[in-house]
Amino acid sequence: MTNDSPALATALAYFRAWTGGDFDAAMAYIDDDIVCQAPAGRLEGAEAFRNFMGPFSQIVTRAELVAGFGDDSAAVLMYDTDTVPVKDAPGAECHTVVDGRIVHIRIIFDRQPFTEARQAGAQA
Amino acid sequence: MTNDSPALATALAYFRAWTGGDFDAAMAYIDDDIVCQAPAGRLEGAEAFRNFMGPFSQIVTRAELVAGFGDDSAAVLMYDTDTVPVKDAPGAECHTVVDGRIVHIRIIFDRQPFTEARQAGAQA
Repeated sequence: MTNDSPALATALAYFRAWTGGDFDAAMAYIDDDIVCQAPAGRLEGAEAFRNFMGPFSQIVTRAELVAGFGDDSAAVLMYDTDTVPVKDAPGAECHTVVDGRIVHIRIIFDRQPFTEARQAGAQA
Repeated sequence: MTNDSPALATALAYFRAWTGGDFDAAMAYIDDDIVCQAPAGRLEGAEAFRNFMGPFSQIVTRAELVAGFGDDSAAVLMYDTDTVPVKDAPGAECHTVVDGRIVHIRIIFDRQPFTEARQAGAQA
């Protein structure tokens, strides 16, 4: 994680901001026209992205970077999180960065434990 | 994806073997004492790993590398797959490599569409 990738620098700045509780600061790295491929489908634009990641950032109680790599225009992060409903909820993101802004994110995580926690809550 | 990471070279050789349909060749890169953190839990040893990834490799109809990065001992791959039950099923893996063998894999994917496909099949 010591390489000189400008894309990784941006991805890590974004990651540290949102996991540090400053989602507005994180959004400063997000391009207005971002496209995000998330498990539930494709999101277009910064507001759609904010409505997806903002609520998630609110339920995170621990975040730890597992790996981060990048080159001039792309970066990959893998991280682990604990969240209020689900412990040990890892995620991976591939960012495309242009001029210091993230224009594309592909994010992978397992929705199943979140769905199960929601269903268990509804039955409680 | 042009860096000189020995860990990435091993991770890519493993990836190309299993996505190319030669799972036995892929297993040649897997350490006997591999630990795999998968969405459903922790797997220990090459046989447990084979029983997890082998059946998955059989249902993959398309695999495409999205990103691959690494350093001396770690590599991260992100890829997209189509599978028989689920199209567009991406995954991400973080490998730890020692002496050309993969000793640890953390793998992230969304189990939910696979569960939904299984439930839909059971109801059909």
